[in-house]
Amino acid sequence: MGWGIIDVSGSRMTHVANGIAHSVGTDLGVRLLSLYEQLTDVIHTYSPETAAVEQTFVNKDAVGTLKLGQARGIAMLVPAKAGLDIGEYAPNAVKKAVVGVGHAAKAQIDHMVRLQLPGVKIAGPDAADALAIAICHAHHQQSANHLARAIAKASA
Amino acid sequence: MGWGIIDVSGSRMTHVANGIAHSVGTDLGVRLLSLYEQLTDVIHTYSPETAAVEQTFVNKDAVGTLKLGQARGIAMLVPAKAGLDIGEYAPNAVKKAVVGVGHAAKAQIDHMVRLQLPGVKIAGPDAADALAIAICHAHHQQSANHLARAIAKASA
Repeated sequence: MGWGIIDVSGSRMTHVANGIAHSVGTDLGVRLLSLYEQLTDVIHTYSPETAAVEQTFVNKDAVGTLKLGQARGIAMLVPAKAGLDIGEYAPNAVKKAVVGVGHAAKAQIDHMVRLQLPGVKIAGPDAADALAIAICHAHHQQSANHLARAIAKASA
Repeated sequence: MGWGIIDVSGSRMTHVANGIAHSVGTDLGVRLLSLYEQLTDVIHTYSPETAAVEQTFVNKDAVGTLKLGQARGIAMLVPAKAGLDIGEYAPNAVKKAVVGVGHAAKAQIDHMVRLQLPGVKIAGPDAADALAIAICHAHHQQSANHLARAIAKASA
């Protein structure tokens, strides 16, 4: 499971950290606990102000979807436990925000993430995806802020 | 999500508690957090020595399977976090342990759980299922203990 942290100041984004959480152990409970602990460490280390998770593809087989769901449950729980709002974005929305089109190859996402976060060292494809989700979330929050300001102006 | 606690002493089982954890809230993260907190309370209140979870049916639609997986991730995480081993049993194994056959109606499970745990008040069908899983887990652990004793004797 990839994770990524960015800093957003106005329209400027900078990379903070990214990585991969590996589920360690043989028993399912222990594996999920290891994911939980690694993600909790990330939250404690970087104290993010908001979070986002990809809306998972569900066109896998049933067993794969169940496994994905179990891991995703942990990915949602950890930021919720820290009191963060959690944005959810469909893969196409993430690609559109980062690459400009809804259908983009992995390599293109990786390339655009590197362009938008100069100097970033990416831990792997899942970490690149996580950074892309963070960038998408930042875009959406900026749009929401602009809209809120426009409404405030209109009603001033 | 149903839960049930039983006490096992030799071959004698007694009911301790059962209930339903409801996911409260609108955001997914908050709903999963509410499940997490309710199950954590159950663990803290009753300090179980072992845990068991049903192997989930995966013959639902993909969206349903994903949701089930997310909740199941929490159901596995909480006992793992408390350091408990977690048994996993297929629905048919649970029915076989409680009713005697692998295909049994809900009403039959409910009936047999009441017979095996005299005086029990059951919070709902999901709680009856949870108690059935606990009974199944107790049977399996007894068999494992008998086997371990038999092996110890054989090698003594």
